[in-house]
Amino acid sequence: MSDPGSDPEADAVAIRALIERWAHAVRARDLAGILAHHSADMLMFDVPPPFESKGIEAYKKSWDLFFSTQPEPIAFYVRHMDIAAGAEVAFVAALMQCAELDKSGRRITLDFRLTVGLCKIDGQWLILHEHHSVPAI
Amino acid sequence: MSDPGSDPEADAVAIRALIERWAHAVRARDLAGILAHHSADMLMFDVPPPFESKGIEAYKKSWDLFFSTQPEPIAFYVRHMDIAAGAEVAFVAALMQCAELDKSGRRITLDFRLTVGLCKIDGQWLILHEHHSVPAI
Repeated sequence: MSDPGSDPEADAVAIRALIERWAHAVRARDLAGILAHHSADMLMFDVPPPFESKGIEAYKKSWDLFFSTQPEPIAFYVRHMDIAAGAEVAFVAALMQCAELDKSGRRITLDFRLTVGLCKIDGQWLILHEHHSVPAI
Repeated sequence: MSDPGSDPEADAVAIRALIERWAHAVRARDLAGILAHHSADMLMFDVPPPFESKGIEAYKKSWDLFFSTQPEPIAFYVRHMDIAAGAEVAFVAALMQCAELDKSGRRITLDFRLTVGLCKIDGQWLILHEHHSVPAI
């Protein structure tokens, strides 16, 4: 039985817009925009080490590392996004693309996978969990 | 507003038990048990390539690869699990441990990260998404 006050379609639209704004903020190096919809006690599993980053301060620091290695202009695009949204909890599975420099300094494309976990707190969707990865070779 | 028919605590207990039974089925090489609570159109991001596996048949095949490389006895343990459960959608972020053989054939521990996305269909929690990874080196 669904919460009669919930609207799964509107929630999916809101979450899609939130993820696209977040990716846009990354491309603009806008740290306030990147952090605008995150829980203080979020948990991240990122592409590079460490194994896990707990809390918003550790998450914030991970972007310093990202921006220090990114060639300009910054690429950070959602290629495809699947959203499962309930009234209070949702998750997103996405195919993402950014860029990096290879050993000879040439800009190359990096495809990565992203899963995001969200909860609706006081009527607003907040990111509690991000999992970024590439397959291990 | 929560669905008056939902019980987030009972849902979290059910999901924890589902994940632990799934991990137990992996340790027992019990493929039917591994697949017992998955959606036919699930999406997996795994530790080794491919980049993504769509659908239950691709997911099933990924276990053939896993079992062909795993030293006995199979290790597949949940070390820590955070659960966010709504009435219809939930996600799990977990720290996991399995084993592998190093280049000299010695059994070593492999820590990995796992995110699981679930939906409640006809009163039963089903896994729609798994994301397994290790940090890139």
